[in-house]
Amino acid sequence: MASAERSAPAVVTGGAGAIGSVLAQRLVADGRPVRVVDNLSSGKRERLSTLERGGHVRFSELDLRRPDGLGPVFEGAGEVWHLAANPDIRLGTNDPSIDLHHGTIATANVLEAVRRADVPRVLFSSSSVVYGRPTVFPTPESYGPLLPQSQYAAAKLASEALLSAYCHSYGVRGWIFRFANIVGPGMAHGVVYDLLQKLRRDPTRLEVLGDGRQAKSYLWVDDCVAGMRLAEDRATDRVNVFNLGTAQQVPVREIAERVVRSFGRPVRIEYTGGEGGWVGDIPLQLLAIDRIRALGWSPELDSSAAVDRAISTTRRELGL
Amino acid sequence: MASAERSAPAVVTGGAGAIGSVLAQRLVADGRPVRVVDNLSSGKRERLSTLERGGHVRFSELDLRRPDGLGPVFEGAGEVWHLAANPDIRLGTNDPSIDLHHGTIATANVLEAVRRADVPRVLFSSSSVVYGRPTVFPTPESYGPLLPQSQYAAAKLASEALLSAYCHSYGVRGWIFRFANIVGPGMAHGVVYDLLQKLRRDPTRLEVLGDGRQAKSYLWVDDCVAGMRLAEDRATDRVNVFNLGTAQQVPVREIAERVVRSFGRPVRIEYTGGEGGWVGDIPLQLLAIDRIRALGWSPELDSSAAVDRAISTTRRELGL
Repeated sequence: MASAERSAPAVVTGGAGAIGSVLAQRLVADGRPVRVVDNLSSGKRERLSTLERGGHVRFSELDLRRPDGLGPVFEGAGEVWHLAANPDIRLGTNDPSIDLHHGTIATANVLEAVRRADVPRVLFSSSSVVYGRPTVFPTPESYGPLLPQSQYAAAKLASEALLSAYCHSYGVRGWIFRFANIVGPGMAHGVVYDLLQKLRRDPTRLEVLGDGRQAKSYLWVDDCVAGMRLAEDRATDRVNVFNLGTAQQVPVREIAERVVRSFGRPVRIEYTGGEGGWVGDIPLQLLAIDRIRALGWSPELDSSAAVDRAISTTRRELGL
Repeated sequence: MASAERSAPAVVTGGAGAIGSVLAQRLVADGRPVRVVDNLSSGKRERLSTLERGGHVRFSELDLRRPDGLGPVFEGAGEVWHLAANPDIRLGTNDPSIDLHHGTIATANVLEAVRRADVPRVLFSSSSVVYGRPTVFPTPESYGPLLPQSQYAAAKLASEALLSAYCHSYGVRGWIFRFANIVGPGMAHGVVYDLLQKLRRDPTRLEVLGDGRQAKSYLWVDDCVAGMRLAEDRATDRVNVFNLGTAQQVPVREIAERVVRSFGRPVRIEYTGGEGGWVGDIPLQLLAIDRIRALGWSPELDSSAAVDRAISTTRRELGL
């Protein structure tokens, strides 16, 4: 990227979230002024307090479902990292309007603000769930047809489509990152968090959704952020699509056992049965990561190490 | 399909359009009561007047951008053919809100009405433009990644994604048809119509957008409707994705020459140059149609015959 763009502010939507706040820290560490947009529905402003006190982050509490007020945030920005979204896939099944508004329509509003402010680059956090239930593992970026199984997944694919259209119509450059399961500090959803919350309520038994054979790959948040930033530097297409994950699957059964082992005392593990944990769950996920590897990235933690670190971090956070 | 579903009303959104009205006729010919929803922005109610007089079609002028009033239309329906959309790809580039609202959000509203009324089947008219600029020809349904180049294409892909999510979450069955260029009576857009309109204004010269080497496949509307109805009967997946086109490309240059030849007098053809006709144009399109062929469908008219019939039909309509 040009040096003027390197010193221009970076906008991070969802920047008070578990991934966005780590990204904001890294951008600031590289000397970039950062503007965070977050509606604080799941984000926490405390995560940014050091950065805000240092004058490195300007925080705007805005709801991306409406376009009002976005202009000043995007004006003069060198790039937009669009990470804001409803973080819990399960919510959408009961109320499909959540992902439509907080996903698709929010992205449309961000992209309109990008167009009006002439921001040259947009980086978007998509998800492996756009593949639906793929029949090829590891699943490459070229896999199709894309048949999402949840409202969350539909909103991610719709957002990818909008970003691609904006790139081709208005000269923006785009990066689409299809995330594996990202784990790290402060994540208030996902299998590790759910299992630990259950043990907090009843330390003697652990209910596991599904038959425990669901198997996915897990990526530590720092590896995720490093991958995105490397791809921004090194990928040169108008629209760049990258899977971001690790090369190993960890079955849910093994995660449950790792959680129990971390306590060093006996716990009865009970499976609810069925192949998926919930409506819209994708029981098997393993992404092909050759494309991002070819740019020079590789994760420091493999899936098991990422899960173990997530267990110890989340235990600490929950006081367990 | 079950016999109760065969006698239940079929809803056709965009049913006053050039494709929807042909579909409505065929459904009525098979003894189905039809409910048409159309906002008449490009549809014409006259197309349905015979069917309405015969009591076969119930017409509702409704704007799908808002969910109001959809309930009674969808109540008790056996299936929904969702064809309503902004028909002109070029409009979206100047105003991205058109395809967002008339495409993606309209589809979301239709699907919510489907869910509330418990309609068992949804058939959706998508488009070859979801493939962006593919690198494989003929392009199979499994092609990826899908990188749309226009707001229209983004809305089609977003709508596919929503339909897929509804199918997997709520027990609906879905059909996604990715159309080649459909030609037929009453089409007020597309290359044949545009060229004839230009000749109407100036019979001595014909301006052609691009270098004339853009080459796409053309499908006559009756073949398109027959293909969709056959796939509904014979495809049994929860979500069924089919390309619908012909096996031949016709270059725009050849279409211009066929148009001129149809008049039998000299016309100067002038090319504006450049590989695409307009921002968001996909210069090369040829769909793999093996999947729908394997069900027993094949088009009666090949691309050239479809173009020739479109020329003579449109000339008659324009009084040329």
